[in-house]
Amino acid sequence: MDQFRPRPPNSTPLTPLTFLDRCATVYGDSTSIIYNHTTFTWKQTRTRCLQLASSITNLGIKPLQVVSVIAPNIPAMYELYFAIPFAGAVINSINTRLDARTVSVILTHSESKLVFVDQDSVSLLLDAISMFPSNLNKPKLVLIAEDDFPMVGSESFDSFECRYESMVQNGDPEFNWIRPVSEWDPITLNYTSGTTSSPKGVVHCHRGMFFIAVESLIEWGVGKQPVYLWTLPMFHANGWSYTWGMAAVGAVNVCLRKFDAGVIYDLIEKHGVTHMCGAPVVLNMLSNVSGVKRLKNPVMVMTAGAPPPAPVLARAEGVGFVISHGYGLTETGGLVVTCAWKREWDKYPAEERARLKSRQGVRTVGFTDMDVVDPETGVGVTRDGLTLGEVVLRGGCIMLGYFKDPEETSKSMRENGWFYTGDVAVMHPDGYLEIKDRSKDVIISGGENLSSVEVESILYTHPGVNEAAVVARADEFWGETPCAFVSLKAEMVGKVTEKEVVEYCRGKLPGYMVPKTVVFKDELPKTSTGKIQKFVLRELAKKMGPIRKSRISSINGCKPSTYNEAGSDGGVGVTVDDGGEDVVSTVVELQ
Amino acid sequence: MDQFRPRPPNSTPLTPLTFLDRCATVYGDSTSIIYNHTTFTWKQTRTRCLQLASSITNLGIKPLQVVSVIAPNIPAMYELYFAIPFAGAVINSINTRLDARTVSVILTHSESKLVFVDQDSVSLLLDAISMFPSNLNKPKLVLIAEDDFPMVGSESFDSFECRYESMVQNGDPEFNWIRPVSEWDPITLNYTSGTTSSPKGVVHCHRGMFFIAVESLIEWGVGKQPVYLWTLPMFHANGWSYTWGMAAVGAVNVCLRKFDAGVIYDLIEKHGVTHMCGAPVVLNMLSNVSGVKRLKNPVMVMTAGAPPPAPVLARAEGVGFVISHGYGLTETGGLVVTCAWKREWDKYPAEERARLKSRQGVRTVGFTDMDVVDPETGVGVTRDGLTLGEVVLRGGCIMLGYFKDPEETSKSMRENGWFYTGDVAVMHPDGYLEIKDRSKDVIISGGENLSSVEVESILYTHPGVNEAAVVARADEFWGETPCAFVSLKAEMVGKVTEKEVVEYCRGKLPGYMVPKTVVFKDELPKTSTGKIQKFVLRELAKKMGPIRKSRISSINGCKPSTYNEAGSDGGVGVTVDDGGEDVVSTVVELQ
Repeated sequence: MDQFRPRPPNSTPLTPLTFLDRCATVYGDSTSIIYNHTTFTWKQTRTRCLQLASSITNLGIKPLQVVSVIAPNIPAMYELYFAIPFAGAVINSINTRLDARTVSVILTHSESKLVFVDQDSVSLLLDAISMFPSNLNKPKLVLIAEDDFPMVGSESFDSFECRYESMVQNGDPEFNWIRPVSEWDPITLNYTSGTTSSPKGVVHCHRGMFFIAVESLIEWGVGKQPVYLWTLPMFHANGWSYTWGMAAVGAVNVCLRKFDAGVIYDLIEKHGVTHMCGAPVVLNMLSNVSGVKRLKNPVMVMTAGAPPPAPVLARAEGVGFVISHGYGLTETGGLVVTCAWKREWDKYPAEERARLKSRQGVRTVGFTDMDVVDPETGVGVTRDGLTLGEVVLRGGCIMLGYFKDPEETSKSMRENGWFYTGDVAVMHPDGYLEIKDRSKDVIISGGENLSSVEVESILYTHPGVNEAAVVARADEFWGETPCAFVSLKAEMVGKVTEKEVVEYCRGKLPGYMVPKTVVFKDELPKTSTGKIQKFVLRELAKKMGPIRKSRISSINGCKPSTYNEAGSDGGVGVTVDDGGEDVVSTVVELQ
Repeated sequence: MDQFRPRPPNSTPLTPLTFLDRCATVYGDSTSIIYNHTTFTWKQTRTRCLQLASSITNLGIKPLQVVSVIAPNIPAMYELYFAIPFAGAVINSINTRLDARTVSVILTHSESKLVFVDQDSVSLLLDAISMFPSNLNKPKLVLIAEDDFPMVGSESFDSFECRYESMVQNGDPEFNWIRPVSEWDPITLNYTSGTTSSPKGVVHCHRGMFFIAVESLIEWGVGKQPVYLWTLPMFHANGWSYTWGMAAVGAVNVCLRKFDAGVIYDLIEKHGVTHMCGAPVVLNMLSNVSGVKRLKNPVMVMTAGAPPPAPVLARAEGVGFVISHGYGLTETGGLVVTCAWKREWDKYPAEERARLKSRQGVRTVGFTDMDVVDPETGVGVTRDGLTLGEVVLRGGCIMLGYFKDPEETSKSMRENGWFYTGDVAVMHPDGYLEIKDRSKDVIISGGENLSSVEVESILYTHPGVNEAAVVARADEFWGETPCAFVSLKAEMVGKVTEKEVVEYCRGKLPGYMVPKTVVFKDELPKTSTGKIQKFVLRELAKKMGPIRKSRISSINGCKPSTYNEAGSDGGVGVTVDDGGEDVVSTVVELQ
């Protein structure tokens, strides 16, 4: 029994690229992509990808070299998810909302040899390249422009190799795409989106992306020939792998350049959208549109990226979105923990269902294992829904590692078999995990670890609150105390005070969890995928300076005040302190 | 980019066994198994499997040793699919309908160390063991008996180690199950079912069974918590991997000891069955029951093992079965080609839909590749739906090889990357494959390759025909000519003659494809999984001797006659010859 070895028929490298070949056979004449007035069939999409791949090769790109893309969810972006690896290269998609300096860092760090750039990101890219150290070779550039895009008379296009469509048209439709030599060969390079401060280059292999694509379909119960609306940017963890996954099921990919709630509702109706993904902030936006009519047919929505507040879940489901909730990281290539729904939960009242669904859940079917452990001892925490620990993961879709960063790679990919996520969670008695925070977002007040997410979930139940994020603010007495940044619903601006927000929380949270500082802002800073950038808010909280010990013990009145943060955009704030349950209870600190 | 290597967090061996751990968390309190008055929950099933695994270990079984099971689809059989590999051992399930000699060959060849045997197969097993060469060690025996099974006073149980339930009860529910060291470690050993003459021991690994289980769920679109009726024997290619697959989706497994159409209809109604599998002969049996009422809810049926005749498909769908059709071999662990249905086919008339669905189809999503090639040159045949070639396959679920048979392994698992199936097919212009025959079943008449399946499909359209199978009979003039074995519907016996069957075919097939010999039989010989055993029929055809050349050229009348085959069970036959289209046309040969 131990004499067997892998042989060629059973050990050809796994890769999600084969999905496209099959799709062009099975669903060849069905629509692959719709974008404004453009539509393609799966046969056309495959041919175009082969043509592109041959042209990429003709530009001198060699296997395992990095090719970058800066584009929104347009057809070219979808095609490049096959065309670039068809040429044996590694696809590096770059967030269109980054600044030129960061793009420059990514392009130099990745040693990208070729960049495809959408018309709207040309100046971003050229600025980024102008920041290259002079001794570095610059990548070749290809412009993705729509037909009516005016290029005449502009000098900025001189540095471009060619236009995207000419690469398609001049390519070989019979190109024999380059198979990975090993299933462990790299296929993608994604720089993390920056909720933590230092972006890292996450490298995934063909095998891993095959797994996550297949698992994600089973987990979500995606049937054949769905209509998928691309609300989730593909540059965000490769669209959670649904880029390749949609070719596995012969989907219609509905593309869109910009995220706009009105456009989305139109596209849902026009094309009969069945599935879409998005961060909870997307759900929030969609369900907060005034005068929204109930959807004709239910739309399956997979949400992740942050725990969806229960009231947002409830509102979105009221409109007709059927929401599944999961958890993943750029490092896992997609969702590896999902809130697997049980039939018997259907009978619970809406509030309880929302509470259950706001938990991230259990590992997906094909993923090997997950746990919540004490970061010191590595032992699983008590499954009581209370004890905080770090989420650790194990499974076939975990990254190969961080590009050119063996140290960070070893730090997270441990020899004990676990990938350490840096995310903080509790394990419920029923084995469902609930994320409480990024490690960095945990607030330690008077020695108590407190979850900023729990404070946020209470803030979201306030009728005036549109968005809320809580970070630690230094506190001379407590060490840290919660500092809430809040944007109000438009119609509520001026009608709610910071103090009322504090009072509202006081009735619903233990004293040490009530925000001591509340700052109103017009809008909270977000990544392009809708995640609130807590590190920006932490910077703001830092600039406010610590809550001083002397005042806490001396001021005993209740005088709300405005606080102008350094460099703020007009946000107003109030700092409140109740000094914990057993010290003082109605102190409001003045600035 | 070429610096990365697999690390522990992303390279833990894949295995379908992890599905059970997850299922016990997610669907722990839901029903896992129903059998008569016994039901278990998934938590209980997992615990029982761990207890069993610990008891198997306590009996001295070591990792990679073979443990056999001879049982029908009862709960113990399902449990052993986890419990045996949980102990690190290789599960070898044995067809309950084999004869003692074959069972003896399997047990000695596999070096099985432990055999679990169902109460109804005890004498089969004891007979088999009595045939062991005297110098061989005998395996330990465990009896799986129902509570009311009388064991007192029987000497035959002296050789048994213990009873199944006592292994469960005495086992350690906290047993730490033994993970595979490599995902390429063997997990199953299945002896092929014997449509060809020499059974071979097919060995599969954990990685392969993980793939086929996951893919088979996507392909069939199985959602969460289905109700699966075990009409397909688990000993047949491990129930096409749905043994493990059903744990991945938290199914209810409805077990049954014996296949009976009435029982099946009762169970469908009683438990709300949603899914089942079976050979076309199963469909035929279910749809031929007189007075069948339409099913209340549609039942998804996956069929494979032989091309389902169009009339059978139509009848079964009339009752309310929604039929998917696929193709696989013991060597692929399950279905790797399925007739992926296209939405646009829904609009075709029933006959055209049946024709499309009777094709085996395209490779499944996770499978790497398939083709139909000229066995001489290895080049893909013309995709015209006419040119016969051999089916070749490539993908992660192809077996490790044949146990102790490196020569046969190398013959089928070629260095060119293909597994050669021995099955004969055509490729249609749309890329859908259609099996025409096992290589051995192809009839070569006057230099023309003809597919016995095509002749059978015409025979099935005859209103009197219940079952039909066509094999080659030696023919002195033509080399071979088709010989049809037919069983008639009960009410048609005596009302249809062999000659009428020949005449019926003559109007619908080219002359060289019309059976020259027709033999009526009460029943056709079948494997336990319902496949007609053509090798038995070929033996019968051989005993008839060749159709003699002299007669073909001399007899010019049309005198039907009976033919008594040697050792027949009352079958009557007639041999007909039209001598090919261009020679003579109305000769009927007399015996």
